[in-house]
Amino acid sequence: MQYNRRNRLNLEAYKEGILSGDKVVLGRAITLIESRLKEDQDLASKLLSEITPHTGKSIRIGITGVPGVGKSSFIEVMGLHLTSMEKKLAVLAVDPSSQISKGSIMGDKTRMETLARDPMAFIRPSATGSSLGGVADKTRESLLLCEAAGYEIIFIETVGVGQSETLVHGMVDFFLLLMLAGAGDELQGIKKGIMEMADLIVITKADGENLANAQVAKTAYQNALHLFAPNPNGWTPGVVTCSAMENIGIADIWAIVEKYCRQMRDSGYFNQKRQNQNLAWMHEQISRALETNFHQKESIKKELKLLEEKVLEGKCTATDGARQLLDLYFRT
Amino acid sequence: MQYNRRNRLNLEAYKEGILSGDKVVLGRAITLIESRLKEDQDLASKLLSEITPHTGKSIRIGITGVPGVGKSSFIEVMGLHLTSMEKKLAVLAVDPSSQISKGSIMGDKTRMETLARDPMAFIRPSATGSSLGGVADKTRESLLLCEAAGYEIIFIETVGVGQSETLVHGMVDFFLLLMLAGAGDELQGIKKGIMEMADLIVITKADGENLANAQVAKTAYQNALHLFAPNPNGWTPGVVTCSAMENIGIADIWAIVEKYCRQMRDSGYFNQKRQNQNLAWMHEQISRALETNFHQKESIKKELKLLEEKVLEGKCTATDGARQLLDLYFRT
Repeated sequence: MQYNRRNRLNLEAYKEGILSGDKVVLGRAITLIESRLKEDQDLASKLLSEITPHTGKSIRIGITGVPGVGKSSFIEVMGLHLTSMEKKLAVLAVDPSSQISKGSIMGDKTRMETLARDPMAFIRPSATGSSLGGVADKTRESLLLCEAAGYEIIFIETVGVGQSETLVHGMVDFFLLLMLAGAGDELQGIKKGIMEMADLIVITKADGENLANAQVAKTAYQNALHLFAPNPNGWTPGVVTCSAMENIGIADIWAIVEKYCRQMRDSGYFNQKRQNQNLAWMHEQISRALETNFHQKESIKKELKLLEEKVLEGKCTATDGARQLLDLYFRT
Repeated sequence: MQYNRRNRLNLEAYKEGILSGDKVVLGRAITLIESRLKEDQDLASKLLSEITPHTGKSIRIGITGVPGVGKSSFIEVMGLHLTSMEKKLAVLAVDPSSQISKGSIMGDKTRMETLARDPMAFIRPSATGSSLGGVADKTRESLLLCEAAGYEIIFIETVGVGQSETLVHGMVDFFLLLMLAGAGDELQGIKKGIMEMADLIVITKADGENLANAQVAKTAYQNALHLFAPNPNGWTPGVVTCSAMENIGIADIWAIVEKYCRQMRDSGYFNQKRQNQNLAWMHEQISRALETNFHQKESIKKELKLLEEKVLEGKCTATDGARQLLDLYFRT
């Protein structure tokens, strides 16, 4: 707490630092947002309200793929491509696994060495938190801070193995799925439903001996995507190959993202999607708070455990269990 | 209300009627469950507790597919196949569209004429309700009544165009997706994510001139399914063709369902899945009740509308909007 107080700036200092693009202040502001201290949370809330008029101007891109797909190499090469065009890029992460291992994303940070040293880039490892929803909230808010600090492109990366993809999908404009070519396509562990969220599938490591495999995979995924219903926004997700090692396909991928944004801005879908995301986010936060309030009650905690066991053993119906708990909750 | 009271039986009469397999009483009990009168709901709750020990012995099968796929023909032919083997079959429906049009499912009932007259079969059109979650709850409870009445196989059908599939997937042992062959695969409007829930995909109308198309579609879907991650239960969803008109493939499909049940029972997954479904159902009902309570408050209704507009216009952050509403809710 001592440490925190010493490092906390005042509202004006945060705001000015962020709006002037000061990376150190931006980093501290994200730390403030991630803090669970009530005072910090109040200050963070004020800060967010203050910077809101300066947000919304970036392109928000979700990037997912299982470990081993070459996500950090891809992000580094794509990131350097963008900063070389004078674009300011921020890389954030929603990674539930890093709560335990602290491994992958922190590791990525050191692996993305060149990008990390690039003055045009800002890389921030994943927030930790007690719930995935909470972590995702922090990432959303960090994204807004990055926008206010002038970052024009925001990557939000996630490991394609869990529920975090749905949350990330709900906060980005474009969703990019990285896949590996090769024999074990079905062994990549990409969670069901993720493929269908993709606006673009990128087959990575399409180089050397792997090139032929990548082409085969490309066709396979293209055929699969054809079986899905068309998107209401008129966008047809494509499949491309790339090699981060040989820097092949990177510029093309960015061109696709830009084409998407142009098309969606022209149709009005771009803003509409963001508005809906915002509204959905408000409702998510409300639902989560209602559930948290319910589950934090001591009387509920005890009774819930008992009733869960009864339901599992078939001694009580789910409806009856729910009714008993709700009666208890609304009575007290 | 007069009508309702006259038709309402007492608890014992419902219970005895159901346990003796009386279709008329079963039908009335489902009407009781669907009633929104407080007295009816209390009685229904008692009835469900009473019959719980007699539930759980059926095979619960979800069947989905867009209108035009030949769902009712498939269910009729499959149903007659099952009743010819002396199996008692109940057909329930979760169909949000029927709330408006009252069309498809009621129509199905008359179209499934032979099955409807079969003494071994019980067909019940979809419940209506104000929310899909509520309708799904009624269907789950009706399913339990049907089990108590001795139905060994329960079909729960749904139109593959909306969210009801996820709900149905959460109440069945096996999920069957009907698809049409032909040029416009991607025009069938099957909602994203539904294909990935299927334990078996059935290409319907594989007869006459359509036979070749059906074979092509079979291969396409097989290839697509290979791209998904394997199921944790070890089951690999297959793709088969069938013709309800020529009664081809029906027995094979049933054999696959039986194989699935055997395998899952042996591994323990069958019961585990049901237990998890029950627990999830309890939590769903709690979440829904918490949200309903929130949204029914007059003060919230008014404020929510205002804040939704502010969030849409970017005048208020989602987090701030949620916080204001939650403060209001927990204060009053």
